[in-house]
Amino acid sequence: MKKILILPGDGIGPEIVAEAVKVLDRLKADGLSVELEQGLVGGSAYDAKGHPLPEDTLAQAREADAILLGAVGGPQYESLDRPLRPEQGLLGLRGELKLFSNLRPAILYPQLAEASTLKTEVVSGLDIMIVRELTGGIYFGQPRGVRTLDNGEKEGFNTLVYRESEIERIGRSAFEIAQKRGKRLCSVDKANVLEVTELWRQVMLRLASDYPDVELSHMYVDNAAMQLVRAPKQFDVMVTTNLFGDILSDAAAMLTGSIGMLPSASLDADGKGMYEPIHGSAPDIAGQGVANPLATILSVAMMLRYSFGQSEPAERIEAAVGKVLDQGLRTPDIAAEGQASVGSAEMGDAVVAVL
Amino acid sequence: MKKILILPGDGIGPEIVAEAVKVLDRLKADGLSVELEQGLVGGSAYDAKGHPLPEDTLAQAREADAILLGAVGGPQYESLDRPLRPEQGLLGLRGELKLFSNLRPAILYPQLAEASTLKTEVVSGLDIMIVRELTGGIYFGQPRGVRTLDNGEKEGFNTLVYRESEIERIGRSAFEIAQKRGKRLCSVDKANVLEVTELWRQVMLRLASDYPDVELSHMYVDNAAMQLVRAPKQFDVMVTTNLFGDILSDAAAMLTGSIGMLPSASLDADGKGMYEPIHGSAPDIAGQGVANPLATILSVAMMLRYSFGQSEPAERIEAAVGKVLDQGLRTPDIAAEGQASVGSAEMGDAVVAVL
Ligand SMILES: CC(C)[C@H](C(=O)O)[C@@H](O)C(=O)O
Ligand SMILES: CC(C)[C@H](C(=O)O)[C@@H](O)C(=O)O
Repeated sequence: MKKILILPGDGIGPEIVAEAVKVLDRLKADGLSVELEQGLVGGSAYDAKGHPLPEDTLAQAREADAILLGAVGGPQYESLDRPLRPEQGLLGLRGELKLFSNLRPAILYPQLAEASTLKTEVVSGLDIMIVRELTGGIYFGQPRGVRTLDNGEKEGFNTLVYRESEIERIGRSAFEIAQKRGKRLCSVDKANVLEVTELWRQVMLRLASDYPDVELSHMYVDNAAMQLVRAPKQFDVMVTTNLFGDILSDAAAMLTGSIGMLPSASLDADGKGMYEPIHGSAPDIAGQGVANPLATILSVAMMLRYSFGQSEPAERIEAAVGKVLDQGLRTPDIAAEGQASVGSAEMGDAVVAVL
Repeated sequence: MKKILILPGDGIGPEIVAEAVKVLDRLKADGLSVELEQGLVGGSAYDAKGHPLPEDTLAQAREADAILLGAVGGPQYESLDRPLRPEQGLLGLRGELKLFSNLRPAILYPQLAEASTLKTEVVSGLDIMIVRELTGGIYFGQPRGVRTLDNGEKEGFNTLVYRESEIERIGRSAFEIAQKRGKRLCSVDKANVLEVTELWRQVMLRLASDYPDVELSHMYVDNAAMQLVRAPKQFDVMVTTNLFGDILSDAAAMLTGSIGMLPSASLDADGKGMYEPIHGSAPDIAGQGVANPLATILSVAMMLRYSFGQSEPAERIEAAVGKVLDQGLRTPDIAAEGQASVGSAEMGDAVVAVL
């Protein structure tokens, strides 16, 4: 019996997570052996308990085999002190649970090809997996802060730091994923300027001999940003640092034009993971019941595959999502101009019905 | 009499710079009061003098009122020690001459709208100016390097650092440029994670009161990468750190589909500047006489405008470039499939003929 911690979070989080829970309940009825527990994170945790990652939640998260997160953040929390802001709940979970491997697929659904701002021939069939290091680099590096200089002015500083073992760990994650896909791995760095990413490149090169079936290439981050716009289908798997991964995975996701469809996984060394849609808490449409639950539902599929080793039900969910798109169901974010749209619950119910 | 230092550099550098020099010669004949001097930088300087930025070149650069650079780099230099690599010539010039304000326009030429991988309606009329901080941040921050830890493994580290005066300086540059354009400035940071960019945001907010006619907004870098793909025309001027500017300006340039057309300027506090095309040294086509010289020619226009305060001849050059495009002249990089193309010299001569 696997334990799943459900963290709805803020904004549209509760609405989309509710639909994903329907899917989990449906699979339970079919024999999937999981139990669900609810917890608080982000702004809603701050509201209830005064902290974006309360002790209780952290304890629940440590106990769980996997976590399903909605989204965190909202304008009402932006003036809080940094340690109390919703994002810190997310960063705290990543760091405390050592979820170092962040998988961010950018997949274009053929049914939604029109949604992309890119020409159809440039993106049709797009299927990239970005592997982002998630518990190191400049996000967690010390020293960091703001100091006052002798002349009275302030100076801000952050540290980008990686040690070989950290690079090796994320590198192996990425090589293994590449082995199961198109067997091409592009490591993205800025080795011509940053010493730490020169070390990154050396470690990737060294690892390559353990994965002779994977073709490794290297690209500078500025060029990678360009190539994602110019010819994104050249990529299979990309591996990069925490900050570069943050930027490039968002750009890659937007190439599909439908970020309401994209899930993500954040894994530790033992396959325990946190799963969440890549889109945010969308405060502007929160509470209206119109948010797209499919990215969250597809996050459940990733959970089954990566944390529970169950690829059969994962594929069932993915196929069901394809089916509801084939049926023409669209939440407003993925509806073409003039096309009728459905709400979150209708979409979730449709997936359950296909299942 | 203004002094211009010409640094052809490596790869296609000499070929494209030669065409820009033709344009300068033409303007001299019309009364533009400049004298040209040649110098060495990058790999070709390493070949001739053993260093990518020889003392002589630096002295010439200090003496000059403006610098026109082709491009640096090539595969034959990639195994050199870091301080000897061609890029160090470029970084050395930026740092030594305190060229802190890097202007990178991303403009879509209507004649070349087809070249973009984005749908025409998304990019037609695109005209963004990215203002990138160029002499600070993680590019120059100390401490940096690779150390060996007690357990024997290596750790790489770099420092992202900005002080208020540096942020204020680039901020004022950007506000002033926004005043002369669409009066909208978007400052890009990662203030939700990086303390130094929280300081960045505070300084931008403080500056805003000195430029009441400019509308300031803020965006996280990951979202900015997304928005450039989703709806790039929402931007007028963007201002950001050295590294974020490196990444975002390349992505923005590629939105146009014709990076062979895009110039750049790197300015110091007194308007002295280095001007260069944003594309690289393109070793694969070097020596063939087919490289597009228009970005370098347009860099001359930027030089006239920003370093010499001469907007009339700058506009003449820009209009001439538009004219040759109207005439249907295309180097291979901007030719549509099946369209006939011309070489670098033919393109340069055509611009001179229009002038
Ligand atoms: C909310 C923020 C701290 C976070 C990040 O930068 O990692 C988000 O952008 C993401 O990519 O998950
Ligand atoms: C060549 C490299 C050091 C340089 C940079 O990163 O600044 C280049 O990418 C640029 O943008 O001019």
